[in-house]
Amino acid sequence: MPHIDLGNDEPGIRSLFYYRPETAAPLSELAEILLRGPNSLERWERELIATHVSTLNECKFCSSSHAAFTAAQLPEGLDLPTIRADLDAAPISDKLKALLDIAAAVQRSGREVTSDLVERARAAGAGDEEIHDTVLIAAAFCMYNRYVDGLATVAPDDPEGYAAGATVIAAQGYLPTIDAARAHREKAATR
Amino acid sequence: MPHIDLGNDEPGIRSLFYYRPETAAPLSELAEILLRGPNSLERWERELIATHVSTLNECKFCSSSHAAFTAAQLPEGLDLPTIRADLDAAPISDKLKALLDIAAAVQRSGREVTSDLVERARAAGAGDEEIHDTVLIAAAFCMYNRYVDGLATVAPDDPEGYAAGATVIAAQGYLPTIDAARAHREKAATR
Repeated sequence: MPHIDLGNDEPGIRSLFYYRPETAAPLSELAEILLRGPNSLERWERELIATHVSTLNECKFCSSSHAAFTAAQLPEGLDLPTIRADLDAAPISDKLKALLDIAAAVQRSGREVTSDLVERARAAGAGDEEIHDTVLIAAAFCMYNRYVDGLATVAPDDPEGYAAGATVIAAQGYLPTIDAARAHREKAATR
Repeated sequence: MPHIDLGNDEPGIRSLFYYRPETAAPLSELAEILLRGPNSLERWERELIATHVSTLNECKFCSSSHAAFTAAQLPEGLDLPTIRADLDAAPISDKLKALLDIAAAVQRSGREVTSDLVERARAAGAGDEEIHDTVLIAAAFCMYNRYVDGLATVAPDDPEGYAAGATVIAAQGYLPTIDAARAHREKAATR
């Protein structure tokens, strides 16, 4: 049960967006730019970074959601459970593996990102903007995870709900939630 | 020295905003709403929460900046070094002390925010929105701190620079950085 009365029965971060639409806007815009905006990293690669950090933070709602978002956007022939079971042995690029290592360092602390980790990513083909975005995606999920769990929001067990959410996110992205949150607030105010 | 070529000599998060204005916008809007928007918590109280989390994350740039922003907005008779030296004994409200305890829990992990911590804040007079905003401010600084340190941005030693920045923030807030970042990008593109 959430620590505060959120006034809605939505799960996870959605319940917080409906509670406080003012902060839902920049939080959703940040996710849209980082995870879906123009980028040399594929959407599924960025979602995998988000999933990895959320898993390390043991955030059930975010790791389940972003695993579903990754799976929904994977190229033919890649299987998410196989990738997550052993990242080192996974059939993904060395560049992505090095970026996942940087993300894991960020999850512990910003000061854990060493020149050595950055050089290894660069040697595997990562550019400056890819390194930048990896650090910011990882840092942002250290926020989203803490926000979701710090207020004890509901994380459903049923995988079908996450899969259904993934279909919507893959098609429409993160921005429609902003209007949905505002509409909920207005409706609640006229009750 | 920063891990990547940021193309400018600004310090801390400002150098990252100038490098990537797209993400500077939602990151600055989030700070503006949380730290300066309409709220039953005073601006200096919210800046103190940001300072506390940044100190726990050992982020020199953010803790120095937000300490200066707190000091610039403190009411008569309060002294920031005294407050920071011993939060438990500080001449601040029991409500703010309880919210700082929640923020410190969030810094460790969202799952560290217990019902007990929330009940203590409530008993000291904290409302739902104050608890919500405290959790989100603390979570957001777990992001800003990791972003700033994860890319090894420059944190000046000179306290005068932070004090000068505080005068600007106290007067104008966090939004003017967005246009400054966009202007820098456009100028760099025409060079």
